[in-house]
Amino acid sequence: MIAVSVVRPHDLRVVEADMPPVESGEVLVRVLRAGICGSDMHIFHGSNPFARYPRVIGHEFAGEIVEVGASVTGFKAGDRVVVDPVVACGHCYPCRIGRSNVCAHLEVMGVHRDGGFRNFIAVPAGNAVKLKAETPIGIGALAEPFSIAANILERTGCGPDDTVLLYGAGTVGVTVMQVAKMNGARVIVADPDRARLERALGFGADKVLVSGVDDIPARVAPETDGLGPTLVIDCAGVPALLEEACRVASPAGRVGIMGFSPAPCNISQQEIVKKELTLYGSRLNRRLIPKVVEWLEGGKLKPEAMITQTFAAKDAAAAFELFEKEPGKTIKIQLDFAQ
Amino acid sequence: MIAVSVVRPHDLRVVEADMPPVESGEVLVRVLRAGICGSDMHIFHGSNPFARYPRVIGHEFAGEIVEVGASVTGFKAGDRVVVDPVVACGHCYPCRIGRSNVCAHLEVMGVHRDGGFRNFIAVPAGNAVKLKAETPIGIGALAEPFSIAANILERTGCGPDDTVLLYGAGTVGVTVMQVAKMNGARVIVADPDRARLERALGFGADKVLVSGVDDIPARVAPETDGLGPTLVIDCAGVPALLEEACRVASPAGRVGIMGFSPAPCNISQQEIVKKELTLYGSRLNRRLIPKVVEWLEGGKLKPEAMITQTFAAKDAAAAFELFEKEPGKTIKIQLDFAQ
Repeated sequence: MIAVSVVRPHDLRVVEADMPPVESGEVLVRVLRAGICGSDMHIFHGSNPFARYPRVIGHEFAGEIVEVGASVTGFKAGDRVVVDPVVACGHCYPCRIGRSNVCAHLEVMGVHRDGGFRNFIAVPAGNAVKLKAETPIGIGALAEPFSIAANILERTGCGPDDTVLLYGAGTVGVTVMQVAKMNGARVIVADPDRARLERALGFGADKVLVSGVDDIPARVAPETDGLGPTLVIDCAGVPALLEEACRVASPAGRVGIMGFSPAPCNISQQEIVKKELTLYGSRLNRRLIPKVVEWLEGGKLKPEAMITQTFAAKDAAAAFELFEKEPGKTIKIQLDFAQ
Repeated sequence: MIAVSVVRPHDLRVVEADMPPVESGEVLVRVLRAGICGSDMHIFHGSNPFARYPRVIGHEFAGEIVEVGASVTGFKAGDRVVVDPVVACGHCYPCRIGRSNVCAHLEVMGVHRDGGFRNFIAVPAGNAVKLKAETPIGIGALAEPFSIAANILERTGCGPDDTVLLYGAGTVGVTVMQVAKMNGARVIVADPDRARLERALGFGADKVLVSGVDDIPARVAPETDGLGPTLVIDCAGVPALLEEACRVASPAGRVGIMGFSPAPCNISQQEIVKKELTLYGSRLNRRLIPKVVEWLEGGKLKPEAMITQTFAAKDAAAAFELFEKEPGKTIKIQLDFAQ
C-alpha cells in the first residue's frame, strides 16, 4: 500500500507503507477518496502548531470497511463510510459537555496521528459514519469539510433571521455559505478576488462585495436596517478582519472565527460590550458528520461542483502544487486511492 | 424637589428641579433610595461615551409610586418599586430577539435621559418592578447592580459545573461572585488589593489570588485538572486582562467582559480557535430585575453588607468624593432621598 507522508516540513513523499493492525474497537477502512485541505498544506509547510513529523496526512476521507475489530458491532465488511478524524478521550471537561472537538487529549487523524492519505487505515468504529451505497464516494469525502461549516454555524446559531457577512470566498467560505443558505439565512460574501465572488454567486450568495474596493460596512448597512449583519464569519483567517467584524456587526450580533494565526489581533472591548457581541471560536467538528451526511444524501447542498479536480493518489505532489499555485481554479482537489 | 445633576463634566450640583409630568403609560415614582455606580462617576468625569450634559444622573433607584398614568394597569399609588433604567423600543432586531438592553434606540435613565437622583421621576410602567412592603428600600435599590451580575452570568451560562475566575473584587466583582455562588459554581477571585480579597472571602469566595503577585494561571491550574477555569469574568474592566483571560481559560471555556474601555486589546485568534472559546460582551440587563428581586427577597444573596454608607441626597457631592477617594472602604454608597 502507499501513503502520502510529510517526512519533514517541505518534504512530501508518496511512500510504501505497512498494512495497519486492527484493534478490537476499530474498523479497517480501504480509503477510496480523500480531499486536500488548507491544513494539510500547513503541515507540509511546517506551520501547523500540532503536527509532528513524519506524518501521513489527510483527514477528509471516505472508503469501505474491509475488516472489523473483535468488539465492533453495527459495521460489516463492505459498508461504505466516511471517517470523522476527531478522536477524543470522552472523559475530560470538554468531552463531558459535548465539546469533544476540543478534548484535552485531542488527536486528529492526519495531524496528531497518521491520517487517511493511504490505502488502508484502522479507525475507532465510533468515528466511522455509514454512507448509502449509491452516494458517490467523492461526495462522502466532502462530509468533513462541510462539518467545519456545520460546526461554526451551530456554534454561532445561524438561522432564518440572520443576515450573514462572510469574509472569504475560498473553499471554507463556499461551504459555510451553502450551510448558511440551507439554514435560511441571507448571505453576503466579501473577498478581494472577483472570480471567487462570481463563483460564490453560483453557489447561492445573495450579494458579493469586493474587499479592499467596496466600503464593506457602508454597503452592508442598507441590507440590515443600518444595524449591520447579525452574524459575521471570518472564513479568511486574517486576524485584522476581527476588528472590522466587531465594528460592522449588529447590536446583539455574533462573530465566528476559525483562523489559526498566532498574530495578535486588536479588538475594542468597548465595541464588544456596547453591542453585547458574542465571539465564537470554532475548530473541527463536534460529532456532526452524521448530520452532514444526511444533508449531503438529502440533496440539501451542492457538493458536486465543489470537486474541481481529482488526482491519482500517486500524483499527490502534483495535486499539492496545483492547490498552491492555482487557488482561483480549485475548490476541492481530491486524491483517488481506488486506482 | 431636588435633583443631582452633572451640569458639565467635573461639575456636579444638587439643584432645584421641576416636578415631572406623567404621561399616559408612566408611573410617577417618589425616589427613596438610590445607589452610586462607577458609571455615574464616568459621567461626572466626562468619560461616558453616551452621556449628554446637563444630566440628572442615577440609574439604581427604588421608591414608591405616587401617581399612575391614565393607561397604566397593575400599579397603584403606594406600591413600592425598583425601576429598571433600560428603556428599549421593542421593535428593532435586538429587541425582537429579547436583547432589549442593546436596543438600537436604547435610552438608559441617568445616561441617555435624566435619571433617578431626584425626589420624583416618571418612568414607563413596564420599567417598574414591585417590591414587597417589608423589603428594605435600600435592598430594593440593589436590584439594578445585581442585575449586571445576573446578565453576564446568564449570557455566559454559569452553573454548578463551573470553576469561575473573577478578575476584580470591587463592587461588580462582589455582586458577580454572589450570583455565581448562588448558581452553584466554584469561584476564585483575583485582585491586587488584599483588603478587597479579604472582603471577597467574607462574601463567599472559594479562593483568592493576589494579582501582580501570584502566578494566576499556575495557581488556578490545580483547581481545574490543569485545564483552567471554565468561565472567566473580567469585573475589573482592564483591557490587558482579556489576553490573559483567553490564555488561562479551559478548552470550551467562556470569557465574559463588561468593561467599556476604548483601548484596543490584543487577543490571540489561535488561542480562541484552538480552545473554541466563547467571548461574551455584557451590558446592563435584559429584563432581569424581576428575577433579581425574587433572589433578594428570597434571601439568596447577601445584600445588606453591600451597603457601606448612606448619605442624605443633599450631600451627594460628599458621597461622590468618598466613592472616589476611599475605594477600599466602600462597596455601595447610597443616597437617601426620603429625608
